[in-house]
Amino acid sequence: MAAEGAKLWGGRFTGATDPVMERFNASVAYDQRMWDADLRGSKAYAKALRRAELLSADEMDGILRGLDQVHAREWSQGAFVLKDGDEDIHAANERRLKVVTDMRLWLRDAIATLKDEALLLISALVERAAAEMDVLFPGYTHMQRAQPIRWSHWILSHAVALRRDVERLQEIGKRVNVLPLGSGAIAGTPFAIDRELLRKELRFDEISLNSMDATGQRDFVAEFLFWASLCATHLSKMAEDLLLYSTKEFSFVTLADAYSTGSSLMPQKKNADSLELIRSKAGRIFGRCAGFMMTLKGLPSSYNKDLQEDKEAMFDGYDSILAVLRVAAGVVSTLKIDAGAMGAALSPDMLATDLAYYLVRKGVAFREAHALAGKAVLAAESKKVPLDQLTAQDLSAISPLLAGDVASVWNYASSVEQYAAAGGTAESSVRAQVRLLRAWMTKVSLAPPQSP
Amino acid sequence: MAAEGAKLWGGRFTGATDPVMERFNASVAYDQRMWDADLRGSKAYAKALRRAELLSADEMDGILRGLDQVHAREWSQGAFVLKDGDEDIHAANERRLKVVTDMRLWLRDAIATLKDEALLLISALVERAAAEMDVLFPGYTHMQRAQPIRWSHWILSHAVALRRDVERLQEIGKRVNVLPLGSGAIAGTPFAIDRELLRKELRFDEISLNSMDATGQRDFVAEFLFWASLCATHLSKMAEDLLLYSTKEFSFVTLADAYSTGSSLMPQKKNADSLELIRSKAGRIFGRCAGFMMTLKGLPSSYNKDLQEDKEAMFDGYDSILAVLRVAAGVVSTLKIDAGAMGAALSPDMLATDLAYYLVRKGVAFREAHALAGKAVLAAESKKVPLDQLTAQDLSAISPLLAGDVASVWNYASSVEQYAAAGGTAESSVRAQVRLLRAWMTKVSLAPPQSP
Amino acid sequence: MAAEGAKLWGGRFTGATDPVMERFNASVAYDQRMWDADLRGSKAYAKALRRAELLSADEMDGILRGLDQVHAREWSQGAFVLKDGDEDIHAANERRLKVVTDMRLWLRDAIATLKDEALLLISALVERAAAEMDVLFPGYTHMQRAQPIRWSHWILSHAVALRRDVERLQEIGKRVNVLPLGSGAIAGTPFAIDRELLRKELRFDEISLNSMDATGQRDFVAEFLFWASLCATHLSKMAEDLLLYSTKEFSFVTLADAYSTGSSLMPQKKNADSLELIRSKAGRIFGRCAGFMMTLKGLPSSYNKDLQEDKEAMFDGYDSILAVLRVAAGVVSTLKIDAGAMGAALSPDMLATDLAYYLVRKGVAFREAHALAGKAVLAAESKKVPLDQLTAQDLSAISPLLAGDVASVWNYASSVEQYAAAGGTAESSVRAQVRLLRAWMTKVSLAPPQSP
Amino acid sequence: MAAEGAKLWGGRFTGATDPVMERFNASVAYDQRMWDADLRGSKAYAKALRRAELLSADEMDGILRGLDQVHAREWSQGAFVLKDGDEDIHAANERRLKVVTDMRLWLRDAIATLKDEALLLISALVERAAAEMDVLFPGYTHMQRAQPIRWSHWILSHAVALRRDVERLQEIGKRVNVLPLGSGAIAGTPFAIDRELLRKELRFDEISLNSMDATGQRDFVAEFLFWASLCATHLSKMAEDLLLYSTKEFSFVTLADAYSTGSSLMPQKKNADSLELIRSKAGRIFGRCAGFMMTLKGLPSSYNKDLQEDKEAMFDGYDSILAVLRVAAGVVSTLKIDAGAMGAALSPDMLATDLAYYLVRKGVAFREAHALAGKAVLAAESKKVPLDQLTAQDLSAISPLLAGDVASVWNYASSVEQYAAAGGTAESSVRAQVRLLRAWMTKVSLAPPQSP
Repeated sequence: MAAEGAKLWGGRFTGATDPVMERFNASVAYDQRMWDADLRGSKAYAKALRRAELLSADEMDGILRGLDQVHAREWSQGAFVLKDGDEDIHAANERRLKVVTDMRLWLRDAIATLKDEALLLISALVERAAAEMDVLFPGYTHMQRAQPIRWSHWILSHAVALRRDVERLQEIGKRVNVLPLGSGAIAGTPFAIDRELLRKELRFDEISLNSMDATGQRDFVAEFLFWASLCATHLSKMAEDLLLYSTKEFSFVTLADAYSTGSSLMPQKKNADSLELIRSKAGRIFGRCAGFMMTLKGLPSSYNKDLQEDKEAMFDGYDSILAVLRVAAGVVSTLKIDAGAMGAALSPDMLATDLAYYLVRKGVAFREAHALAGKAVLAAESKKVPLDQLTAQDLSAISPLLAGDVASVWNYASSVEQYAAAGGTAESSVRAQVRLLRAWMTKVSLAPPQSP
Repeated sequence: MAAEGAKLWGGRFTGATDPVMERFNASVAYDQRMWDADLRGSKAYAKALRRAELLSADEMDGILRGLDQVHAREWSQGAFVLKDGDEDIHAANERRLKVVTDMRLWLRDAIATLKDEALLLISALVERAAAEMDVLFPGYTHMQRAQPIRWSHWILSHAVALRRDVERLQEIGKRVNVLPLGSGAIAGTPFAIDRELLRKELRFDEISLNSMDATGQRDFVAEFLFWASLCATHLSKMAEDLLLYSTKEFSFVTLADAYSTGSSLMPQKKNADSLELIRSKAGRIFGRCAGFMMTLKGLPSSYNKDLQEDKEAMFDGYDSILAVLRVAAGVVSTLKIDAGAMGAALSPDMLATDLAYYLVRKGVAFREAHALAGKAVLAAESKKVPLDQLTAQDLSAISPLLAGDVASVWNYASSVEQYAAAGGTAESSVRAQVRLLRAWMTKVSLAPPQSP
Repeated sequence: MAAEGAKLWGGRFTGATDPVMERFNASVAYDQRMWDADLRGSKAYAKALRRAELLSADEMDGILRGLDQVHAREWSQGAFVLKDGDEDIHAANERRLKVVTDMRLWLRDAIATLKDEALLLISALVERAAAEMDVLFPGYTHMQRAQPIRWSHWILSHAVALRRDVERLQEIGKRVNVLPLGSGAIAGTPFAIDRELLRKELRFDEISLNSMDATGQRDFVAEFLFWASLCATHLSKMAEDLLLYSTKEFSFVTLADAYSTGSSLMPQKKNADSLELIRSKAGRIFGRCAGFMMTLKGLPSSYNKDLQEDKEAMFDGYDSILAVLRVAAGVVSTLKIDAGAMGAALSPDMLATDLAYYLVRKGVAFREAHALAGKAVLAAESKKVPLDQLTAQDLSAISPLLAGDVASVWNYASSVEQYAAAGGTAESSVRAQVRLLRAWMTKVSLAPPQSP
Repeated sequence: MAAEGAKLWGGRFTGATDPVMERFNASVAYDQRMWDADLRGSKAYAKALRRAELLSADEMDGILRGLDQVHAREWSQGAFVLKDGDEDIHAANERRLKVVTDMRLWLRDAIATLKDEALLLISALVERAAAEMDVLFPGYTHMQRAQPIRWSHWILSHAVALRRDVERLQEIGKRVNVLPLGSGAIAGTPFAIDRELLRKELRFDEISLNSMDATGQRDFVAEFLFWASLCATHLSKMAEDLLLYSTKEFSFVTLADAYSTGSSLMPQKKNADSLELIRSKAGRIFGRCAGFMMTLKGLPSSYNKDLQEDKEAMFDGYDSILAVLRVAAGVVSTLKIDAGAMGAALSPDMLATDLAYYLVRKGVAFREAHALAGKAVLAAESKKVPLDQLTAQDLSAISPLLAGDVASVWNYASSVEQYAAAGGTAESSVRAQVRLLRAWMTKVSLAPPQSP
């Protein structure tokens, strides 16, 4: 029945192959990025085949030499050529796992690079914080001026978020660094492949525990994409702050020319494109994560072709977060600040909280102290004077405790010094953060990305 | 202060430009896809500049000739070269809008292509449904056999979903086909640019209403990406069905070789890769939608560089959904069905509902009729016979109404004929669906994608 | 084998039911919101059953009376009680579709409400734009001051985005308003149910075309959730602008107390919580859309229990976007603007573009005119004077054409009047936008949400 | 100007408060879930205030007694009443952080619960795998029968995925268990609050490093939501497998009644609702993750009201994944398998790979061995006999090496025993997996969820 009907509905589709389907299926472009990982994996596998006596010593030597030649040729010529004959060295029963192994080797290196870039960015933040310790400016909540803080305190708030990112990245690294080779198509390998030998050759931390899981799981890709998404969200937060600070209205910072562009239409404009690009990539990267998670959802066990989406997502996630980290480091390193404009943005009403604290220290309950500080703010508003211009009489009318050294409250430099508890904005606390981060960076830089 | 400190933290960043930033900023690869749209837009704009007396007749003629030469040269050589000098013809104050205009022209054509491809797929489905009207097989709910239905009814369930997709696509098409040119950078154009002339030249339906909105909105991209996502979800549903039907266990359908691959490891296997790829793209495309929506969220008004993510998302969404539609059409057109296996999967217990309906027609209330049918199922189970092998005695013990012509219930062909209400699986209803869809296709194929 | 083993691994699970499973399965809380729709649907179905002679006239009358009593009782008591006995009136074979019908009826009403709320918001925007036509302030691109525009132009940029939302909502409304009843479990209804009668009774526009599709598709929920997401993204854009404008640094607008909160800690602060909530909901709503799309992806045909996620997503999407629209209307209606601060934010360098246009009108090519304007900006910067303080000599040194009435350029009020093309910021253009939107609102308000 | 105009556009909005805004702002429903965490935090804070001499010993004792009474009363009555007076004990300057501290305490407990539930599920899987070691069935790739494997091997493939989930959960637990109290609104706490004392009292692992970061970061919520998403994706994979296996066509497994539902319409049907619900929740949970990430994207530093979305997302993510884990454990524990049907689904063509391996062991290269096995498959197909029915003559015609003990290949039990490398499906390998997982469970169950 179908045969006759097919003339009606399938006129276009008569050939043995469909070119759309072929393009759909192709993955050469992505495989090229992994050729170095591929050569390393192939060499290790040849050794394991030799150990299993599936290759003679001569055969193995021939393969290893051949692979080294490929490596040398590509390296010198910058061109990657996949020869059909090379393929034989991948045992046919592990071809698909070979690709997963390549992905894991590639991502292991990629994670090492990202860790280095993140540390460079953190280092730029920390050293800048150490150097610009004396600059005060408004801390904002709800995008409204809240309390005076050190500029260095703001800088370090972003550094500590990135520190968490590095920690997470190292945790993911452990799970990336697991050898899947030797799991076959689904049931395992039927030969005396020494998986422990392969693990050591390729410097994996562990071997996969179950062959079905090894062929069908891509947790490491999903985890990596989410890692990149969360890290990008941190940098989108920093970028949003700097975009605000670089508006004419705030005028706290100026980006270096390398990270800005002029406007062809408006010669007076300087746009902070770099920050907008950082902000936008948080969306893009999370889109990759969302797409891959949706592809995974509801799939049955073991290998399904759907998983082929893994490579493009992984590469794009990597390229995007790498660029974001590098551009962020460039922006942070070259930014000019206007300490004068920052200081000028502080105003006495931002010390209303300090007035309340002054009362708390004199024994007034929090709630009452805040109510009294609120009255002082209102009094200043109704007199149309800044809060620090209220007279001694004005203040004592609000509370007899607002007397004596109350004028000492109106000082931004001493205000910030109140916050000397761990994590606060007092100089001692900020310097402690600097020390802590420097020590952590030394430790984490020395740590090998993965054990041999 | 920054100057000294910068040595500490910014050692790497001394040049006037950052190559990472430049790559970040580049969009050439995407712009190439729109060169045809770009030439059309440039020609129309040259005419508008002439009308506004900002170009002389000679200047305009020179530009139009130049653009035609570019077009001819590219067409014959297949290479796209952006010359600096060409740029002048884009009025500097509209450069960014030029790109948005190009995107809209490009997407208008893309939508026309997608509509055609969707109609070809629907047509293949409808004609196949018409030709294979007599094939019965199990309809499933919760992945469990539920009721006998026509195979054609299943086919058409996917065709009507795609019909909604075409309707939605046409609605989006209207909103894509709006001219933004003449909105300047934000405030509008200060020249006597005749936007109505531009609209007619470029065959847009409308002109944009507000210049700020025109420069900063990308609704048409977001809408298109969601359209592609929902359409892909429909095809992921069809693919999931066919993947089930092509398992050894179901054995209802066999894919043509062009849409399957063999396994290098397992020579007996034939994998329905094409269906898995269709299913996976639903994730990928929605990931693009999610990424772009997240990029849009919280942006302030008018143009921000973040919007540069629009083109890559649009192109990838288009490429993916186009491939999915084409591969789906290929699969549907070349699929072989095994009507014998389909019929063999029907079993008398699937007629339990019919037994209940038999009683309802004799005046029994629904609830009671279903309880009685349930008793018959239990009786057959306890006797370990198929439901249709219960004796007249067995049945009358359950209800005296289960007598006379009750044996007529055990007939799949007459079972499906009960569902003759509109949209049901009776032949008359399925044929009515075929007619309705054919008529709709004729109407919608004739309709111009957008008014001139 | 399982029986023995089960003692080892299933100690906790011995009962006939699992309470977690029951809670998992329950949907009462959501069904309650649809009781009104449910009663309407039940009455119509009783009439259809009568027409099919499956109910006697007396039976039908009894059911209709009973349903009216339920309605009256609930209405007066505000409590919804689902009686077991009521259930019988849902033909057993349509129970699941009954729920889908309820959802469609409910969403039809919800869409009418959202349309009204969106129109109220648009109306507030349009009338405010009409009343505050003379206020000028900086238009921003890349968050940097770009060109002087009318405040009303900014207002209307958000109104035209919402206009598209209303148009989209109406299109979705058509697809929501399709009757699924009469599709049975999968194969259709086997009785002489008059679907056309049901359609008219319940004022649906169309009946569903294919019963399998009708039971298993939730396009209308997915479409609605995306609609709400895109609309929320528009309002997140407006909220982000207003959050910027309400910072101390911009000081363009002040929110009414009803839409702000004070800070318990910082008495001087006034936070624009309402705007932050609007911005945040764009994320929440899209999360619902993403979740539901991911649930749909890869499902096989017809009804699967997974679809049960539809109601909660629909209700939460509705509640969120409704609140967002109402709060946005409240914010827009009660906002105070500081026209003085807005005007003071304009600066002569924002007229550099006008200087270029001045030259273009004198016949200079765009590119050259912009280069000359750029030189003027540089000259002013090196003299450390505002651009409008360059002397006639300074200007003529840059170009002899910068002479005569060039001083006329330095006027914000006349600058905006240049943009008189459709959609521009000149008064005539903005007034035209107001007229157009008013006329559109009248037309769209009169249109019935769906045909009877 | 605004005052007059406001009559036009803001008629509805005249009151001092907007009820929509109030509902929008309310978070009582979510706070109730954290009352236990809240009491613990309040007690610790009272002690810290005493240490800082901001409370007298008597005041502290009164507060601690009061909080204990609240605890006892709520516990006995099951009702949570927030008294205004209680609030005073939260120092006003830490109110918002108090909520974040409550969230962290709550999530710490929630993580401990989830770990226990995940371990119960893993334990059920492992013990079942140990008990049903002898059952063989087809392993599938691309949803097509691939190779014979042990049923226990399939079971354990899901257990090892969950093991990774538990590892990830413990890593997240460390980052949840960080004390934010003492960070104030943004700048830190100005009092001698002993953060180390607070940390010990509340058994946190660390204190937060930077006060700005502490108030504005919600990484722990985002991380948790993604954890739940990935875990749910694993269970959606298991559910999809079991849904397939429970179709009539596969008939490998039958769900217990507690995890199935009958069909009111079709008495013969038994639907695996529990599995569909598990599958669907993967979408819902990821939707929460996507929504929250989108809310975070582009926010500026420190606290913004947008963050209020954190609690609902966290609670819903927890409720959903907890239910999924419990239902999955119930399903796994009570499932009946049909070992006969499983065995019957194995067919000789699934041993084609073994035929190739047979040749490889005789020294044939992989590529050639597979080609020869493929020829055997074709020969069997053309003779229309199963692969194992080819005669000695048939086989030797394909290769002279296919002789002698080649018949030993046609044995499923010995086929699986080939896969004895680590992670394979041979009995020794599967038993090794069981041992490894049991040992790991013992270790991880003893480990405290967080250090004291």
